[in-house]
Amino acid sequence: MARRHKRRHPAAADRWRRTLPKLDLAAIPQSNATGYPEPFDREVQERWWRRLAPAGGLTAFGASHVVLKPGAWSSQRHWHNGEDELLVMLTGEAMLVEDNGRTVLRAGDVAAWPMGSTNGHHLRNESDADCSFVVVSAGDRDAGGAYSDIDMVFTEEGYLHRDGTPYPAKPL
Amino acid sequence: MARRHKRRHPAAADRWRRTLPKLDLAAIPQSNATGYPEPFDREVQERWWRRLAPAGGLTAFGASHVVLKPGAWSSQRHWHNGEDELLVMLTGEAMLVEDNGRTVLRAGDVAAWPMGSTNGHHLRNESDADCSFVVVSAGDRDAGGAYSDIDMVFTEEGYLHRDGTPYPAKPL
Repeated sequence: MARRHKRRHPAAADRWRRTLPKLDLAAIPQSNATGYPEPFDREVQERWWRRLAPAGGLTAFGASHVVLKPGAWSSQRHWHNGEDELLVMLTGEAMLVEDNGRTVLRAGDVAAWPMGSTNGHHLRNESDADCSFVVVSAGDRDAGGAYSDIDMVFTEEGYLHRDGTPYPAKPL
Repeated sequence: MARRHKRRHPAAADRWRRTLPKLDLAAIPQSNATGYPEPFDREVQERWWRRLAPAGGLTAFGASHVVLKPGAWSSQRHWHNGEDELLVMLTGEAMLVEDNGRTVLRAGDVAAWPMGSTNGHHLRNESDADCSFVVVSAGDRDAGGAYSDIDMVFTEEGYLHRDGTPYPAKPL
């Protein structure tokens, strides 16, 4: 007799069964929105992101496609207490900046940041052309983290000064 | 007074703090090992994979870098009950095969397969050159799944015939 194979999400299964899994990136809206309070929002004004996980029906991890215009940063330099991150460079060139130096990332390069490592990281587009990447993350977002170069941390309550005073803006 | 920011994995943090997060792909061993029983192992003999998550210290999701030599398949065509998958094409060209057709994937293309969708998928390298991709997955591996074109399912017990009889080989 056949063993039973549980379908955990029959509604989701029906929904996605007839959908091609190749994502139509151009059809997914881009946004440069940020929850960063002033003045920390300036460096990410030309960071254009698309949420891939909802477009693909994924719930087990988050994934974004990001284009950095020349001069833009991927974020303020930061680290996560409870989230792992993996980045795959698609096009162009980005400078990865961390406590211990600078590393150029180009198409096909892969970088990984494990939860709990306090070696803050971000990418800066220091080139004259766009660069793009896909970044995946999973874990406990509410565990928070901190920004390496500025007076800001993030918690489940939002963005705070290091002394615990909240910033006015809210995370996205 | 400063809020407390819990460091969940201090040992891991210490371990990775001095490690550059850009992965040295060439230094990560490649394998073409497969747990598939005969004769289903043939199509993946020239699938060369590297585990990225352990190399990067990641635990919240799995990630692999895969090279398919000409003719090789990424897997037998399959779907997962409890795991989401996201694939980012890096180089070359692969044919994505599903219930509802064939789609070419090229560098920069992204495909997503949500858990519970029974639309089986795999990639075939039908070109004359290598192709490569990164694939990320997370969820409940033990929830199992099935192969669309062959008499095989996978469960926490391993590979089984559809009638529940086990195959001799074990999953990796």
